[in-house]
Amino acid sequence: MHYKEKQLDEVKVFKDPVHRYVRVVDQVIWDLIATPEFQRLRRIKQLGTSYLTFHGAEHSRFNHSLGVYEIVRRMVSKMEEHESWNKEERLVSLCAALLHDLGHGPFSHSFEKVLSLDHEKFTKRIILEDTHVNQVLKKVADDFPEKVAQVIEKTYSDQAVVSIISSQIDADRMDYLLRDAYYTGVSYGQFDMERILRVMRPTDEQIVIKSTGMHAVEDYIMSRYQMYWQVYFHPVTRSSEVILTKIFQRVTHLLDQGYPFKEEPKLLIPLFREPIYLADYLDVDESVILYYFQRWQTEDDAILRDLCLRFMNRNLFKYIEFDPIQDEDKLVQLQHLFLEAELDPLYYLVVDSSSDLSYDVYRPGEERVPIYLQMPSGQLKELSTHSVIVEAITGRTREDHKLYFPADAIRLINNQALQDKINELLHYR
Amino acid sequence: MHYKEKQLDEVKVFKDPVHRYVRVVDQVIWDLIATPEFQRLRRIKQLGTSYLTFHGAEHSRFNHSLGVYEIVRRMVSKMEEHESWNKEERLVSLCAALLHDLGHGPFSHSFEKVLSLDHEKFTKRIILEDTHVNQVLKKVADDFPEKVAQVIEKTYSDQAVVSIISSQIDADRMDYLLRDAYYTGVSYGQFDMERILRVMRPTDEQIVIKSTGMHAVEDYIMSRYQMYWQVYFHPVTRSSEVILTKIFQRVTHLLDQGYPFKEEPKLLIPLFREPIYLADYLDVDESVILYYFQRWQTEDDAILRDLCLRFMNRNLFKYIEFDPIQDEDKLVQLQHLFLEAELDPLYYLVVDSSSDLSYDVYRPGEERVPIYLQMPSGQLKELSTHSVIVEAITGRTREDHKLYFPADAIRLINNQALQDKINELLHYR
Amino acid sequence: MHYKEKQLDEVKVFKDPVHRYVRVVDQVIWDLIATPEFQRLRRIKQLGTSYLTFHGAEHSRFNHSLGVYEIVRRMVSKMEEHESWNKEERLVSLCAALLHDLGHGPFSHSFEKVLSLDHEKFTKRIILEDTHVNQVLKKVADDFPEKVAQVIEKTYSDQAVVSIISSQIDADRMDYLLRDAYYTGVSYGQFDMERILRVMRPTDEQIVIKSTGMHAVEDYIMSRYQMYWQVYFHPVTRSSEVILTKIFQRVTHLLDQGYPFKEEPKLLIPLFREPIYLADYLDVDESVILYYFQRWQTEDDAILRDLCLRFMNRNLFKYIEFDPIQDEDKLVQLQHLFLEAELDPLYYLVVDSSSDLSYDVYRPGEERVPIYLQMPSGQLKELSTHSVIVEAITGRTREDHKLYFPADAIRLINNQALQDKINELLHYR
Amino acid sequence: MHYKEKQLDEVKVFKDPVHRYVRVVDQVIWDLIATPEFQRLRRIKQLGTSYLTFHGAEHSRFNHSLGVYEIVRRMVSKMEEHESWNKEERLVSLCAALLHDLGHGPFSHSFEKVLSLDHEKFTKRIILEDTHVNQVLKKVADDFPEKVAQVIEKTYSDQAVVSIISSQIDADRMDYLLRDAYYTGVSYGQFDMERILRVMRPTDEQIVIKSTGMHAVEDYIMSRYQMYWQVYFHPVTRSSEVILTKIFQRVTHLLDQGYPFKEEPKLLIPLFREPIYLADYLDVDESVILYYFQRWQTEDDAILRDLCLRFMNRNLFKYIEFDPIQDEDKLVQLQHLFLEAELDPLYYLVVDSSSDLSYDVYRPGEERVPIYLQMPSGQLKELSTHSVIVEAITGRTREDHKLYFPADAIRLINNQALQDKINELLHYR
Repeated sequence: MHYKEKQLDEVKVFKDPVHRYVRVVDQVIWDLIATPEFQRLRRIKQLGTSYLTFHGAEHSRFNHSLGVYEIVRRMVSKMEEHESWNKEERLVSLCAALLHDLGHGPFSHSFEKVLSLDHEKFTKRIILEDTHVNQVLKKVADDFPEKVAQVIEKTYSDQAVVSIISSQIDADRMDYLLRDAYYTGVSYGQFDMERILRVMRPTDEQIVIKSTGMHAVEDYIMSRYQMYWQVYFHPVTRSSEVILTKIFQRVTHLLDQGYPFKEEPKLLIPLFREPIYLADYLDVDESVILYYFQRWQTEDDAILRDLCLRFMNRNLFKYIEFDPIQDEDKLVQLQHLFLEAELDPLYYLVVDSSSDLSYDVYRPGEERVPIYLQMPSGQLKELSTHSVIVEAITGRTREDHKLYFPADAIRLINNQALQDKINELLHYR
Repeated sequence: MHYKEKQLDEVKVFKDPVHRYVRVVDQVIWDLIATPEFQRLRRIKQLGTSYLTFHGAEHSRFNHSLGVYEIVRRMVSKMEEHESWNKEERLVSLCAALLHDLGHGPFSHSFEKVLSLDHEKFTKRIILEDTHVNQVLKKVADDFPEKVAQVIEKTYSDQAVVSIISSQIDADRMDYLLRDAYYTGVSYGQFDMERILRVMRPTDEQIVIKSTGMHAVEDYIMSRYQMYWQVYFHPVTRSSEVILTKIFQRVTHLLDQGYPFKEEPKLLIPLFREPIYLADYLDVDESVILYYFQRWQTEDDAILRDLCLRFMNRNLFKYIEFDPIQDEDKLVQLQHLFLEAELDPLYYLVVDSSSDLSYDVYRPGEERVPIYLQMPSGQLKELSTHSVIVEAITGRTREDHKLYFPADAIRLINNQALQDKINELLHYR
Repeated sequence: MHYKEKQLDEVKVFKDPVHRYVRVVDQVIWDLIATPEFQRLRRIKQLGTSYLTFHGAEHSRFNHSLGVYEIVRRMVSKMEEHESWNKEERLVSLCAALLHDLGHGPFSHSFEKVLSLDHEKFTKRIILEDTHVNQVLKKVADDFPEKVAQVIEKTYSDQAVVSIISSQIDADRMDYLLRDAYYTGVSYGQFDMERILRVMRPTDEQIVIKSTGMHAVEDYIMSRYQMYWQVYFHPVTRSSEVILTKIFQRVTHLLDQGYPFKEEPKLLIPLFREPIYLADYLDVDESVILYYFQRWQTEDDAILRDLCLRFMNRNLFKYIEFDPIQDEDKLVQLQHLFLEAELDPLYYLVVDSSSDLSYDVYRPGEERVPIYLQMPSGQLKELSTHSVIVEAITGRTREDHKLYFPADAIRLINNQALQDKINELLHYR
Repeated sequence: MHYKEKQLDEVKVFKDPVHRYVRVVDQVIWDLIATPEFQRLRRIKQLGTSYLTFHGAEHSRFNHSLGVYEIVRRMVSKMEEHESWNKEERLVSLCAALLHDLGHGPFSHSFEKVLSLDHEKFTKRIILEDTHVNQVLKKVADDFPEKVAQVIEKTYSDQAVVSIISSQIDADRMDYLLRDAYYTGVSYGQFDMERILRVMRPTDEQIVIKSTGMHAVEDYIMSRYQMYWQVYFHPVTRSSEVILTKIFQRVTHLLDQGYPFKEEPKLLIPLFREPIYLADYLDVDESVILYYFQRWQTEDDAILRDLCLRFMNRNLFKYIEFDPIQDEDKLVQLQHLFLEAELDPLYYLVVDSSSDLSYDVYRPGEERVPIYLQMPSGQLKELSTHSVIVEAITGRTREDHKLYFPADAIRLINNQALQDKINELLHYR
C-alpha cells in the first residue's frame, strides 16, 4: 500500500547541537511537531532530576525526540540503498521515531512509580485517541496511527522497522547517549554513530551490523555502560529521585487522608482515579509539578513541606553503601532509632537500588534481541561470540544499593546519645 | 583589610560542558551556590524564549552563573601574576561574578517591560536584604555584601574589578557567547577565550589587552556581533517575546478591570503594587508563569486564552519587514482593518524593533568603557584605532524592525474582501 | 555528451579528521588517487614551513586535495537539486577538485620564486602530458583531460563549475581554512561550511548565495582574514621562508659559479634549464630537498652551510617592523654595516612583505569574481552592499613589512662598536 | 639537592591542537627544544607508515614529544599539591618526558628490526654522550643527564617519577592515544585526561588512582584497546610496514653482495657496522630514507626497484587471514608455487603477526606495573579486581596473523594454471 508522502515545498531545518541539523522533508512530520501534544515535551526534561547533579543537563524530551527522528531519517536513507529494505516503511519509521516518547509524564521515573502509571500506554493512547497527533497521522491513512503505535509497541509486522526504534542498538539509545553526554559535558557518551549507520544492514528479522563495524559497536556498548554508571545512576541524582518519590508518596497519603491543602493539587487529582482521561494526563507537565512544590514549601504538613523545601533548594539526602543482605539488621535498628528521633523512616531512611544489564544475548522468555554481526560470508554471528569486550559484560547484571538519609536533620537531633548511635550505625561523619 | 578566605577541605568540581570543569575552592562560594536564591536560577532560562527557535537552548541562568564565576576564577588567577592586581579583590570578584544575575525574573525581558521592574535592583536587594545570600556574604565581613553589590552596580572603588564583571569584554559576555553557542549549536560564538585570558593585564582603571592578543579580541567581537543577529534577535524568538509581552499586558489589563479569573494569578498580584516584597518576587519563577499559562488556555477572556494557547503550543505570529518612517501610514491603515476584523491591533499587530551597538569607543554621557590595547611600549591604544575590523563596526548601531501578526487568524476572517485587503498590505502569502 | 561514469562496486571511504569521511564512488577518482603523481603530494606539505611555527601543521597537499574533492562532491550533490545545474558537469568538477594542486613543488612558495616556476603550468602539464593521471582521465573521454585542465585554468565554458573550484568562496579555500585551523590548532578557521553548502545556488555564470546565508559567509570571510594574519603570514613562518629562499638563491649562485659541491644537487639541476622535463620536475619532493639540506650542513661554502644549519635546526632570523618608505635610509646604512661586519646583506638582511586583500568587488582588469547574494526576489546583490562587516574590508589591502636578520650572528661580531651601531639601528635588544 | 631551575622571563607558549597550549617556563626545556637532536624529531613521523592508511596521520615525534612534556607538566603541578610528592623531581620529570623518544630512527619499527638497533639505547646515548642535549642538561647539574637517562630507563630511584613517564597509565600513552586519534580522525582515542590527572596520587612506589576516578581509567584502557586494533595494527598499515621491512632487508642483502648501487646509501652504510657513531645515526631521518627510495625506483635490482616503487606510490600488498598452525602446509605450498612463478617468497609472501596485551596485573619476571586504585580507606587495590571491564581483558593477549602478497604481480603470472593454483590457495579474488 502506498501512503501519501506529501513533501514540504522546502526542507525545514532545525539547528541541533548534536546532529548539527535536523531535516524535515515530510508534511506529516512538520505537522506532528506542531501539535500541542508534541510541544508539551518541551516541558518535560529528558533526564528528570539529573540537572541537580549535572547542571548542564536541562534538555527536554522534545530535544531528544527530534534527535531520534533525525537518526532514523539518516538510517532509513542508508537502508534504502539495500534491496532487503522495504521502502514503504519510511514514513512509519520516521513517525514512530518522533513520537516514541510522547506519553512521558513529568519526572516520569518517580511519578509513574508512585501513581502506577505507564508512559508507554499513554504514548499509545495519544497516538490512537482523539488528539491532534492522531488527526495528523490519519491524514496519511486510516490505519496509519495503528501502525505507528505497533512499531512503538514492538508488535509491528516488519521487525526490521521495530529494531531501528527499539533494540539493543537503536536510534533512541544512540541519540540519548550522544545527547546526554553533550549536555552533561561528560566525555563517555562518544561513539562513531556515522560509522554505525554505515555498517547497518536490513534483514527480514532485524537490522544487523556488517562485521567490519564491530569495533564501533563495541565502543557504543562501552559508552552505554559508562553513561549508566557515571550519569544515569549517579548517587546524587538518585538522592533527588528519592526525595521526589517521597513527595509523591506523601501527597498520595495526604489526599487519602483528606488533608486540607492550602494549595490543592487540582491538576493531579484526576490522575489518582480510574479512568484517567487523556486531556487530564496531558495537562500535567513539569512546570505544574514545580508550581505545586513551590507552593507546598509553606504547607502545614511538616513532611511534605520539608521534602519540597529540600527538592526546590537542592538540599538532598546523603548516602552510604548498603548491602541488602548483610545490612538488613542494621536497617531495622536504624528504623527504630529514626522513629525514636521522630524522623519517619518511611520518608527519611530509604534504600535505593540501581541495576543494569549492559548487553545480553537472547534468553528464553526475554524480549532482548541480541546484536548480530554479518560476516563477509553473509552468515550472522551474535556479537558477544566475536567481541572479547562485549563477551565480558554480556549477561552480567551490575547492581548498586545505597541507603539515603538527611544528614542535616540527624545533626539536629536533640538527644546526643541517640544522634551518636545513629551516626555510628551510618558510619557517616 | 584581610577577608576571611575560608577554603574547602577539598576542591569541589562541577562538570561543565563549556569550561569542562567549574572549580570551587572557597567555602563562601560553595555556600552561596547552596542558597535558595541561587538555586532559584535553575528555574529561569538563560535565553528566555529562544528555545522556541533553537530547541537546544534550554539552559538556565544557574548554568550561566556558574560559568561566569569560573571564568572570573581563571582570570583572577592570571591577574595575580601581575603586581598591579590587588590580591585582596579575589573573593569580592568571585562573589560578584557568581551573583551578577541573581535578580532576574522569569522571561525577564518581557516581564520587566510590562511590570516596570528592574532585575538589577532586585539583584542588589537580594544581596543586601535579609536573605540566605546576605547571611553567607556577611560571614566574610559586615561590609562584604555592600562591596559585592557595588561591583555589580559598577560603583566599586577598584574599577579593574568592575571591568572583569562588566565591560565590553567581560566574563559575563564571554560566558554567554560560548554557552549560548554551545547550547543552540550555532558555530558563531566561538573565540579563543584561553588566549584572551592570557593577554589580559590589570591596570588601575580597568583590564587592558596586550596588543599581541588583538586578533583574539577581534574574533570575540565578531562572535558577539554574529550571536546578536543570528541568535538573540532571531525574528522567531522575537515573535514569541511579542506574544509573551502581550500576555503580561493582557493580564495587567484584566486585573485592572477586576476580571474574574478561573485561575487567579495569586503569586503575580503582589508584583503589581508597591512596595514589592522580596519574598514575593522570589516566589515567581518560570514554572509558576508556565503553570498560569497552562491554566489560562481555558479562560473565558478570548485574547488571554488565545495568546496562552499560542505560547504553549508554539503557534507564533508571522512577520514582515517594517520601516518605521516609510510604513507609518500602512500601519495606521492596518490597525483600522484589524479593528474591522475584530482583531484587537493592540495585541495582534505589533511592531518589534531590535538594535545593537556591537562595540563603541567612549562617548561623553555614556557608560561604555572602550577596550584598550597595551602596546609593547606600555602605551594604551583604543582597540578600533588598531583593528580595521573593529573600526568598521565601532559606533554603528544596527537596527531591525518587524511587524508581527497572526497569519492563521487573518486566514479565518469571514469577510473575504477585508481579508484580501489586509493580506495585500502585508504582502504576505 | 555523456561521460562514462563508472561506479565502484562499493563506496570507498577515507577517514578524514576535518570532514569525518571522504567518500569515493567513481572508478576514475579511485584510480586518480592511486597514481604516482597524486601520491607524490604526500611528500609536499600543505603549509610549507609553517610547521616551524605551528608544530601541528605537518599535513600534506595530499591530505588537502582529498578534502577539496570531498567538499566538491557534497556541493555537487546539493547543486543537483537545482535545475540550473548541468548534471553532466559532475565528474569534471570532481576531477578538477582532486587535481587542482597537482603541480605544486616542494616548499612551493620560495622554490617557485627563485626558480621562476609556476605550479599552475605544471598542474596543466601533468594532466595533459603522458602521465598516469592523463591515462586515467582519458579513459573517460579523449577530451576529458583538456576539460579538467580548463576548469583549473578557469577557462572552462561552464563558469559555475569554475566558481566552485576557484572563486572568492570556493571549495579550495573552504577546505584549507578548516584544515589548516584543525592542524595548527588555532580557533580562527571555523565557519559553518554545511550551512554555506546548503545556501549555494547555481546560476549560469557562477554559484551564488541565498541571502539568508549571508551571516555564514561573513563568518567565512572573517575566518579567512584571521587565518591569513594569524597563521599564513606569521612572522616566524616568514623568517623560515626567508631562509629557504636564500638557500635556493645561494644554490643558484653556486651552480652558476661552478662551485664544487660535496653533494651535488643532481635532482635539482634539470630544473634550472629549459625545457624542464615533467619527469624531472616530479622527481623533486620535500624529502629530496631536505636530503640536500641535510648534506649541505657540511659544505665548504659558509653561507650555504650556515643557512642549511639554520633551517634544519630551526635557528631562524629575528625581525623588526620595517616601513619601506621611511626606513629606506636605515636599510642602506645597515647594508653598509653588514658588509663591514662580513655578513653578506643579500643573505642576511632581508625585507619581507606580506599583503592580502581579503575580499573585493569586481574591478576592471581584475579576475576576482565578487560573491553575490540571491535575494528572495531572485535579484542578485553583491555581498559588500549588504554586509557591514564585509564592506569594511572590501578592497582594503593590508600590508606588513618586516626586516629579517640573524641576531645571533650579530652578537658574534668582534668589533663591539660596529655591533652596537647595528643593534642601535635595529632597536633590537 | 637543589637544581638550578632557571625560569624564562616570560612563559613561552606553543599552540597545540590536542592540549590547546604547551607552556614552557624553564630555560632548560626551552634550550632542549632548540637542540638539533630534538629538532630532528620533526623529520620522523609519530606513526611511521600509518599515513598510508589514515591520510591525516602525518604528525611527527616532535609533535608528540611536546605533548608528553605538557601532560607531565600538568601532572607535576597536580602532584605538588600532595605532600608525598618530592618537589625536587619536577625538572627531571619534565626533561625525561620531553626526551623520552629522542633516539627513534626513521620508520623505527621496521628499521630497527632489520638493522638490529634499539632506539632506547640511542636515546640514552644522545642524553649522555657529547651532544647539544647533553650540554643543555649539564648546565643544571653534572649528574643531571644521568638522572634523566635513568628515568627513561626506569632505573631511577624515585619510582613515582618513573611511573608518570612509563607505566600502564603514563603521559606517553595518554598523549599518543589522544594525538593519534586527533590526527587520524578516529573517534576511539577519547578519554577524560583532565579527570585522570585530577585523581592521580603520588605514593613512594608509583602513581595511583583515587578510586572515584576508576571509570575514567576504564575509558582510557578501552581507548587504548581500540586504538591498537583500529589504528596501530590496521592491516593496510602492516602491509606498508611489510614492504618497508623488505626494502631494508633487500638493501642489507645487496650491500653484503657488493651490489653496485646507482645511488649508494652513503648515509646508511655506517649504521651497518659496529660501532655506530652517534653523529652518523642522527644524520638519518625519514627524508633521507625517502630520498633513497625515490632514487631506487630506477635501480637495476628488480626486487629493490619494485619494492621502492610500491612504497612510494602506495601500491601495497594484499592480505588474507592466516592461522600459523593450521595454515603452515599451505604456506609451504605457496612458497613453492611462488618460486615457480619467479616471485621470491622471501620478499613476496610474508606472514605478519600483531599481538597486544591491553592491560595486565603483575606477573613474576615481567616489568609491567599494574594500576592501583586508592580506596577511601587509603588501601590500594589492583584495578582489575574492581573493574568488570578491565578484568575482562586483563592478561588476555590478542593476536592477529595475516599473509601478505602482491595481488597485482600474481595476476601477471603468465602460466595461467600456476596463477589459478596460487589464487585458489589464497582464496583471493
